[in-house]
Amino acid sequence: MAGDELSQRIENALRRALARVTGAAAPPRLAAACEASVFPAGQRIRPRLALSVALACGDDRPLVANAAAVAVELLHCASLVHDDMPCFDDAALRRGRPSVHAAHGEALALLAGDALIVLAFETVALAAAADPLRAASLSLVIARAVGMPNGIVAGQGWESEPDPDLGLYQRAKTGALFAGAAQAGAVAAGAAAADAWGLLGYRLGEAYQVADDIRDVMCSERTIGKPVGRDEALGRPNAVRELGLRGAALRLKSLVEEATDGVPVCPGADALKTQIRLQASRFLPEDATQYAA
Amino acid sequence: MAGDELSQRIENALRRALARVTGAAAPPRLAAACEASVFPAGQRIRPRLALSVALACGDDRPLVANAAAVAVELLHCASLVHDDMPCFDDAALRRGRPSVHAAHGEALALLAGDALIVLAFETVALAAAADPLRAASLSLVIARAVGMPNGIVAGQGWESEPDPDLGLYQRAKTGALFAGAAQAGAVAAGAAAADAWGLLGYRLGEAYQVADDIRDVMCSERTIGKPVGRDEALGRPNAVRELGLRGAALRLKSLVEEATDGVPVCPGADALKTQIRLQASRFLPEDATQYAA
Repeated sequence: MAGDELSQRIENALRRALARVTGAAAPPRLAAACEASVFPAGQRIRPRLALSVALACGDDRPLVANAAAVAVELLHCASLVHDDMPCFDDAALRRGRPSVHAAHGEALALLAGDALIVLAFETVALAAAADPLRAASLSLVIARAVGMPNGIVAGQGWESEPDPDLGLYQRAKTGALFAGAAQAGAVAAGAAAADAWGLLGYRLGEAYQVADDIRDVMCSERTIGKPVGRDEALGRPNAVRELGLRGAALRLKSLVEEATDGVPVCPGADALKTQIRLQASRFLPEDATQYAA
Repeated sequence: MAGDELSQRIENALRRALARVTGAAAPPRLAAACEASVFPAGQRIRPRLALSVALACGDDRPLVANAAAVAVELLHCASLVHDDMPCFDDAALRRGRPSVHAAHGEALALLAGDALIVLAFETVALAAAADPLRAASLSLVIARAVGMPNGIVAGQGWESEPDPDLGLYQRAKTGALFAGAAQAGAVAAGAAAADAWGLLGYRLGEAYQVADDIRDVMCSERTIGKPVGRDEALGRPNAVRELGLRGAALRLKSLVEEATDGVPVCPGADALKTQIRLQASRFLPEDATQYAA
């Protein structure tokens, strides 16, 4: 499936899911805040990963795969909305636009995040009509990726600890949902080897984190659409400070290679490897990629 | 099943669910905030309703019924934690103790709410091992009770509208999770007539809301463990202001009668009616019940 086709499939599935919460019966302001939390599209890296894995594994239940992609993206969007709030990062910008709480107020941002978390699970529950066993596994995979003790919420929770384990922190904050996205795609397509898919996802998540660290250090606010230098301001670990710019870029390259090498045997393995390399090349803005050349 | 036995079953199931998020791998402060969001026990009205309905319908999958009870209570607790936060009610007290954000800070209160929402769905997903079809229906029932456009989150969202439909507001804010609790219990036990169970739940939810309005107007902070007179301060509808104290008490009585009259045909209908009357008698503090005599 070409990149544009994948994009279209993700946006259509997200639109259908959002339509369920923004209809005439819904409180209009909260509906608008939910809409603004999901659109316009960011990079959609996680749902692309989920769908790419499902396609590589045969994609024999496309409705379940769509639910997997929608669920991981909604959970990601919810985490961004809550993370941007004043009691966490207090970020006024996201993707170059006002963050949800800046535009819609704190109350609606909090509720929009809650609503998207619930909608993620509702979307998976609706996919049970196509395949109840896979939907149940999917629900468990995404719950673990986002909840306590190892998911995004736990990752964010480590930021409130005086002396956090930085490895656990980053695995939970970023890695868990990448792992969950890859597993979700595999589960949706009825593939075995969910653990191997999870490991692949963790590596891509770490690669994305390293790329994010590079961006945080070297790019202008305009390029990445959110405030820069925040890791340092907030005392968070950063691969560039640990490894230097060139070291971080090499680490990124090696993680992407480990991820592609680790693609389990499946009908579409080669196409998936190509897709992973293509996606990973988009993790960094162009002027940063030279460092790993 | 006697009241004490029901209580024990609910607390044990909640303890088992919470143990999954508060183990050694979890960030300790967030784990403590999650714990404080669920214990010590409030009245546990919604999980009692879920289990009582499941028992009335035969309770042939007790693990699924337990998951139903746990999920509705976790979602209720999450909504209280988020509602108490400064951007909503800014309530420093809950059940006579400091609210979660007052004791643990806003960041951990927000995350604890998120974690409990996810744990609710995870608990239901785990119950799929006992019965995947019922678990999938259960997941959908609770998602609708809590999400947009008709669940708790929507109810809270109506508070941000300039001219909310008060009927929609109260049905979503309070009624939806009572309806969801009753439906969840029925679905967990494989009963048909989910709509009839939902209607019964809505009536009990409205009865509970009327009782809450009576408490809000007449009781001391000490009796109900949270600030009083807040409905008026926040411009919310209140049955006592609309119907007077005696009118509200009579409305409460009539709603409970409608609910018991509406119990669908099921093996344990009589015991359930007794249970509903007993529970409803606890909605009000003793010195208020005289008004409906």
